[in-house]
Parts: sequence; structure tokens; C-alpha cells
Amino acid sequence: MSLLTIGTVAFDTIETPYGKAEMVVGGAALYAGIAASHFTNDIHLVSVVGDDFPQVELDYMQARGIDLEGLQIKEGEKSFFWAGRYHDNMNQRDTLVTDLNVLANFDPVLPESYKKSKYVLLGNLTPEIQMRVIQQMTKRPKLIVLDTMNFWMDVAMDSLKAVIKEIDVLTINDEEARQLSGEYSLVKAARAIFEMGPKFLVIKKGEHGALLFHKDKIFAAPALPLAEVFDPTGAGDTFAGGFLGYLAKTDNISFENMKRAVIYGSAMASFCVEDFSIGRMKGLKKTDLKKRLKDFVRLAKFDIED
Amino acid sequence: MSLLTIGTVAFDTIETPYGKAEMVVGGAALYAGIAASHFTNDIHLVSVVGDDFPQVELDYMQARGIDLEGLQIKEGEKSFFWAGRYHDNMNQRDTLVTDLNVLANFDPVLPESYKKSKYVLLGNLTPEIQMRVIQQMTKRPKLIVLDTMNFWMDVAMDSLKAVIKEIDVLTINDEEARQLSGEYSLVKAARAIFEMGPKFLVIKKGEHGALLFHKDKIFAAPALPLAEVFDPTGAGDTFAGGFLGYLAKTDNISFENMKRAVIYGSAMASFCVEDFSIGRMKGLKKTDLKKRLKDFVRLAKFDIED
Repeated sequence: MSLLTIGTVAFDTIETPYGKAEMVVGGAALYAGIAASHFTNDIHLVSVVGDDFPQVELDYMQARGIDLEGLQIKEGEKSFFWAGRYHDNMNQRDTLVTDLNVLANFDPVLPESYKKSKYVLLGNLTPEIQMRVIQQMTKRPKLIVLDTMNFWMDVAMDSLKAVIKEIDVLTINDEEARQLSGEYSLVKAARAIFEMGPKFLVIKKGEHGALLFHKDKIFAAPALPLAEVFDPTGAGDTFAGGFLGYLAKTDNISFENMKRAVIYGSAMASFCVEDFSIGRMKGLKKTDLKKRLKDFVRLAKFDIED
Repeated sequence: MSLLTIGTVAFDTIETPYGKAEMVVGGAALYAGIAASHFTNDIHLVSVVGDDFPQVELDYMQARGIDLEGLQIKEGEKSFFWAGRYHDNMNQRDTLVTDLNVLANFDPVLPESYKKSKYVLLGNLTPEIQMRVIQQMTKRPKLIVLDTMNFWMDVAMDSLKAVIKEIDVLTINDEEARQLSGEYSLVKAARAIFEMGPKFLVIKKGEHGALLFHKDKIFAAPALPLAEVFDPTGAGDTFAGGFLGYLAKTDNISFENMKRAVIYGSAMASFCVEDFSIGRMKGLKKTDLKKRLKDFVRLAKFDIED
């Protein structure tokens, strides 16, 4: 099924205790698109880059089934650029540079062929831009997933709440769920967020896994403990792309299937962190994913017999 | 099977956002003993109290199958006392008072009938006292579980490592695993800790669940998300008591059974936090536990079909 994703397509310069990668490709839509492309080849990408973005990377995305008609390429301008340095524990990072460049005046324009996409992933951007995408859809998508962050809660809570009202699945981390809802208990936070519109809530907890809430049901997905996390950049976007890619492939948004989608998303994210940029994702084979999914099953499985 | 537990039996005064409980019973051995008593009634407790400790609470423990021959009652002295206040988020607490009282000169003496206990739980105490218990065993227990904390790593690392060398299962939290091993990755931390002696490592992560490591195997147990955590005091000890109580009952220390034990321990801990002291544990019925275990199964279960 068709999947539309909007977000940044960008350059990153990343320092981790394992090394440094300069001007590698990144951005929420790129990570999510590549992850989703392991499940479906009917992907519509909406974003903006400058004329400095490498054609070879665009060719790679297209070869993976990512339609780039919705990618604006601004002549004479530069792509969004982010530079950051991770601390030894990889859980904290300092932003060194944020150059908005083409992103400063980004106005998403959906090609006609995008406007009936069944699955929509609104990557982390200003709530106004996310809303502009929803407004251009000529048919209500089967599922709209929104990813956002504390920054928009701090500076644009009203606009953010207006978008949240229109979506089906919200993906945020635990601190953001607490900030958005004003509730410390995640169970109560989920109830409060359901009142705002969404029917599903995914709380991403990094190395502690993820929680999926729907009505009064909860699913706890573990994260795979890894000997080495090489670079966590893009893990959340990769999770979202894998999650929605799996749902688009199976075209089934039941709670049971969404649990599986959380595991598929977590598996994709566990690959993402094994290398800089999309390095690990590029060589990823079907058998690698299958093996990783088995690791997740083994990790979480127990039998209680009474 | 016989289970020996050593640790504090004490008074606590606790303030949480939900209220205040003054001079309620607590302590690692009390919490662990009560939790274990839901699985076996062959429990040997080693601890010390003053003559201020209520006889009615001792009677309750004995009625639950907890042998108190190893509990020293010091005439004219006072029991160990701890007072603490939890912050709004319940994850942080301030210690207001620590009165060692009888604990200051505690020298554990094992009655003859205790010295062949098959399952031993060394609750959080000075490593020297924990070692004194091991030395008095006339037969190597089938399984020795040790609980400790960062404080002993700061002030008595050598003595702690000497005890760790003698045990089978170490239970600590994630930060403590990192401190003990010098490794940030928990996978690497587990490998380093196995080099020190233990064959199993349980990493307690509170609201994020627990990880069980054994050789190159890992099991991730979720924590049950609760609408309200009333008082977290004793949750770790209750976990350890439920964990070892289940192992003693089933007398099976395979990795598969230990996974179940982690879930049983987590279930007991989830009850513990629902009231002050052992309030919730006192009224706990078999059917309550059965229902809670089903909640854990539902929480963690997913089916990946290829």
C-alpha cells in the first residue's frame, strides 16, 4: 500500500566515541523512507534539499522504490545541515550546528499522485508544515502517524495540539508524553493523549524499548541490548519508517498487527545504530532482518504455565 | 525447598505524593521473606531487631512460614530506622534519617538448621556480613543470590568483589552494573561481571523492567505500567524474594525457569508498590497473583509469523 513520508533530507556531521562522520546523508524522511523501503516499494517522499545533495543518494532512494516527485530541489541553495557530538554514554548529545538553509522556507507541495496515500508518516517538523500535508490529502488516509518532539511542545503547543487532533498514531518519548499530557504515569499520560485525538500512542524509550497503547491495552516491546551502539542518529525515524512500512505492507491496523509493527520498527532501529548514517541499512538483507526478528522473539519470550 | 534470606528488618517512615506512613515495618529481609512466602513456607530469616519491633508483625511472618530462629532480638536496643521522602516522579528520593541502631554491631549467626539451606538470598548489607553468611554454610547452596548497591562499590569494592566471586546470581540496577564493570553497554557489563564469578546477572530497571543475562543469552522482562505507584519502597527486595521464592518452589535453575522467576518477581514487585509497607502484600490472594501474571503475558506477547 502507498506510504507518504514527510520530513528532512539532510547532511549530518556526527561525532561519537567510535569516530566521526562528516557530511553524511541523514534526515527524518531519508531514514524513514529507507527503513520503509524494506517492506514496500510504493513510497512517496515529501521534502526539500539544495542542489548540493548528491545525485547518487537520490538515485539510491529511487532504486528502492521511493518516489521523489515531492522532493523539492532548490537551485543555488544548501541542504539542511546538523552537526552533533554524542557523549560517552550515547544517551546524551550536544548540537554543534543547525543550519536550516532550504528548510527555512519549506512549503510542502503534494503531487497529485501523493494525495490519496493510504499511510502517512509526518516526521518531526513544525506542526504547521505537518498540518499543511494533512490539508492537501484529497482522501482521509487509513492511518496518519505523527512524530514530534519536546521543542514543539515548548514553542508551538497550540499548533501541535491542532495537528495531534487529526492523527491516528502519535510517536514520542516518555518525557515528551509526560510533558504533553501533564501526567507522570504513562498509563495516565496515554489516557490524556487519547482525549486529544489519537487512537494509538507509541512511547519510544530508546535502550528500554517501546510501549504501544491503544484503548486500555498496552504492549511492551523490548529493545535489543547491543554490545556496541555505533551511532544512534536516525534510530527514531528508522523505527517509525519500519513500523509504518510493515503496516503498509500488511495493510492491517489491528492492535495485534501493530504490536508486530513495533517489533519490526525496533528491529530496523537496531540495525540503524550499528553504523553511521544509513551505512548498515544499505547492505541489509532479508535474511539479516529475519535473524534479527528471531533475536527479538528469543529476547521477550517466556512461558507461564498454571 | 529451603530458602535462607538475610537483610534488614526495620522501621520506615515514608513520604510520597500520596501520603505519609510513619514507623511502618520494612527492611530487605522482611520484604523478601514476605514475597518468598507466597511460594514456599520453608524460609529461614537472618536479621536483627531491637525489643521495639512489634510481636504482631513477627507472629505474622511466622504464620507465613518464615522461621525466625535466626532473628536476633536485642533487649534494650532499637531497630534499624530509615526515613525518606519521594519526589513527585517517584524515581528519586531523599533520605531524611538513617539510624543504624542494632545494625551497627550486627554479626549474623546461623542456627544449625539454616546451614544447609538450598537457596540463599543475601540482601543488601555490608559485603563483610554477606560473606559471613556464606562462610557459615556447611553445604554449598544450590543457588546464592546477592543484592547490593552503588554505596558498597564506592566504599568497599574489594570486599564486595570477594563476595561476588562466591555467588551465582547478582541483582543490581543498570547504573550499578556499569559502575561495577566499567562498561557502559550492558551486554559488555554482563560479560565482565561473569568474569568476576556469577553465572547469572539480573539488571533491575524499575519502570523499564528487568534484564536477565546468562552466558550469551538475554531475557528482557517488562515492568507493568501502573496508573499509580503509591510507594516504591521495598520493590527491589520484593522482586528478589518473589524471584528466589519461585525458584525454591520449583527447584529448577535452568535459564527458562529463571525467566519465569523474573516475571514472578516482577509481578510481586508490582503489588508491593500499590501500598505503603507490606500493606498490599498482606491481602494478596493466589487469584490476584494469577491475574497479574496474565497481565504480564498480555503485555509482552507478540506473534511474528514469517
